[in-house]
Amino acid sequence: MDIFEKSDLIFKNIREIKPVVHNISNIVTANDCANITLALGGSPTMAGHPDEVEDVTSGCNGFVINMGDVAEPLVEAMLRAGKRNNEIGHPVILDPVGAGAAKKINDVLFELLKNIKFSVIRGNVSEIKFIATGSGSAKGVDADESDKVTDENIDIAIDFAKKLSKKTGAVIAISGEIDIISDENNAYIIKNGHAEMSNVTGTGCMLSSVLGVFCAANLDDILDACAVAVSSYGYAGELAYRKMVETDSGTASFRMFLIDYVSKMNAEIFKGGAKIERR
Amino acid sequence: MDIFEKSDLIFKNIREIKPVVHNISNIVTANDCANITLALGGSPTMAGHPDEVEDVTSGCNGFVINMGDVAEPLVEAMLRAGKRNNEIGHPVILDPVGAGAAKKINDVLFELLKNIKFSVIRGNVSEIKFIATGSGSAKGVDADESDKVTDENIDIAIDFAKKLSKKTGAVIAISGEIDIISDENNAYIIKNGHAEMSNVTGTGCMLSSVLGVFCAANLDDILDACAVAVSSYGYAGELAYRKMVETDSGTASFRMFLIDYVSKMNAEIFKGGAKIERR
Amino acid sequence: MDIFEKSDLIFKNIREIKPVVHNISNIVTANDCANITLALGGSPTMAGHPDEVEDVTSGCNGFVINMGDVAEPLVEAMLRAGKRNNEIGHPVILDPVGAGAAKKINDVLFELLKNIKFSVIRGNVSEIKFIATGSGSAKGVDADESDKVTDENIDIAIDFAKKLSKKTGAVIAISGEIDIISDENNAYIIKNGHAEMSNVTGTGCMLSSVLGVFCAANLDDILDACAVAVSSYGYAGELAYRKMVETDSGTASFRMFLIDYVSKMNAEIFKGGAKIERR
Repeated sequence: MDIFEKSDLIFKNIREIKPVVHNISNIVTANDCANITLALGGSPTMAGHPDEVEDVTSGCNGFVINMGDVAEPLVEAMLRAGKRNNEIGHPVILDPVGAGAAKKINDVLFELLKNIKFSVIRGNVSEIKFIATGSGSAKGVDADESDKVTDENIDIAIDFAKKLSKKTGAVIAISGEIDIISDENNAYIIKNGHAEMSNVTGTGCMLSSVLGVFCAANLDDILDACAVAVSSYGYAGELAYRKMVETDSGTASFRMFLIDYVSKMNAEIFKGGAKIERR
Repeated sequence: MDIFEKSDLIFKNIREIKPVVHNISNIVTANDCANITLALGGSPTMAGHPDEVEDVTSGCNGFVINMGDVAEPLVEAMLRAGKRNNEIGHPVILDPVGAGAAKKINDVLFELLKNIKFSVIRGNVSEIKFIATGSGSAKGVDADESDKVTDENIDIAIDFAKKLSKKTGAVIAISGEIDIISDENNAYIIKNGHAEMSNVTGTGCMLSSVLGVFCAANLDDILDACAVAVSSYGYAGELAYRKMVETDSGTASFRMFLIDYVSKMNAEIFKGGAKIERR
Repeated sequence: MDIFEKSDLIFKNIREIKPVVHNISNIVTANDCANITLALGGSPTMAGHPDEVEDVTSGCNGFVINMGDVAEPLVEAMLRAGKRNNEIGHPVILDPVGAGAAKKINDVLFELLKNIKFSVIRGNVSEIKFIATGSGSAKGVDADESDKVTDENIDIAIDFAKKLSKKTGAVIAISGEIDIISDENNAYIIKNGHAEMSNVTGTGCMLSSVLGVFCAANLDDILDACAVAVSSYGYAGELAYRKMVETDSGTASFRMFLIDYVSKMNAEIFKGGAKIERR
């Protein structure tokens, strides 16, 4: 069964399970992460106090760690909730926001990687490279130009992703103009999405929350769930861009259209727009 | 004078007093709470540092405690600002977000209830039941299905609300498909609102901020102010849903339409849409 | 060369440099500040941990301190990042949110002013007066009526701004119905903007982030960059109001239109709408 056939079940599982997803996020994008989770038919819980997260997360179906805020209490909450989710076998998604941009962030990142088993690690190519190599050239939260995945270096990038997946045990999701979704044996490359998405804050954070919903409802097929998630989210971005142009509006309208199209996404729309290739 | 006649004065008081309302909120919905306060013609102050809140809150007309974040400094700020508002006779609204979902949250809740006299306590039925009984079955921030208020159990629910109001001294506002607004003697049941409101984060938090504005401008008639607030907010949700369908948009557009209709709300529109019944 | 001629270069520098601007903000408006930075073609970094900000801010082109949250770790982060930006010669913008409203806020304000050299200080007239005099009458985050700049007291206000600029070394930007942008020798008065902007939270915070982008890309001409920033942002507000009326929408739509028009702003649109006068 290929990924297009599988997508019916993947979307159906979300609608039926209505997964409750625990997100630890940050002051910039917490609202966006909660809203995109709801848009997909999931239910967000955003608890972040170290003493509440174990209770809260036990009642959820999955957990997303967004590293955008590395305050001590939050990091403790990430660790405690992450371990609890590992114990009960729920998927944990890591978004290593800003990896490589500051020693403090890097220290937190490696502490999380050491203590928590992740089902998925999703970031831009600079962040993912930093995880693999411990060095990088990120400026702020955007990927460095020199790191970008292109048609020319795609095979090297896929090989890199497979090795990192083998090392970490997590599906690796590298976001960019070309997305790579890979476990240690199989990879998808995805050419959905639109450059306009980088003109709105939180589009990466929201994607990690989207992965949380897809994975929490599709435990048995994390790789394919991630590929459908990334492709359909990117396609929603394409539709949003089209509507922004048609309405002659701007970046704030684009942001609204993006969430709107995610809220309308289903297997049929996905199949009409997905640009996925198995490698 | 019935509530429809009274609504003229209730809305007029808001426009004339332009109440400044102090909200202690959380990273997910602080922006929404501030914007809904402004949409109604109030002015929000969102100060949360323990050492600033007493100064700040003294210059305000009312105070809303949203328990979505239970970090120690915030809880201290809630307590200090709550006591100060009690001293100067300003209304204090409690939104017990997540009550029952974690021991930590419950501890904070009962500390607040012990130390602050609330004018209004607003939550979903699971949260309110937890306050009354100390037990419950909340999953995350949404009400449990088994707790829901229906036409069948409505009399029991009203009786329950009246008793809790008598015990706490606060108007009790239970949100759901059917809303109950009750003091110890009188209750309203309200059938405004739309299920789509649960597909956007912060619609409950925003309602508590709405109550803050209505109460801060209508000190002498908290019960009726709450009933008009809940009904008109719910009706704004109905209008927003209608516009979402007409524009074939999605959940992010719905969120915008909701705040838009709140910003246009007045006594006349309220009277045209309110579904309130006195019990 | 007058400011209209200069505006071509000012906008061109933003598009070419794509400045990365570090903002330390608050839970209410962090998302808005990040999105307005992106709307202009800048790139936001919102890091706020004391141990990460020096690393992060070194890779940026400018720094905006929004004083909306005065939690200790954030204040330490503001101080460390501010000093670092002073060392490397990057512009630092101060938004003294709530100055005068609480002793705690005032203490933080004067600690920042003592330790950091600001390129720009932007606030409403009550906040700016408080900086100059150490006293004021702010209620919450809005300016006091009695402080407002009018055509009658404008010369006194300009003189006041020039003196404060001389004292602090910063360009002073006073926001209101009439804006004043002044260094110690020259001032602009600006009559763009619309009252509707005060019905949305964060319009002041967003303007400070806008100033961050304009200044980070125009180091050699901070005064004129600020004047173009304030005027074009205000004009975007006028266009947004017009569209709100045309679409018969409300305050949430206005907020979106505002950011939309900022994302479409350029020297040509600016020249068509600017109401700037040199004094």
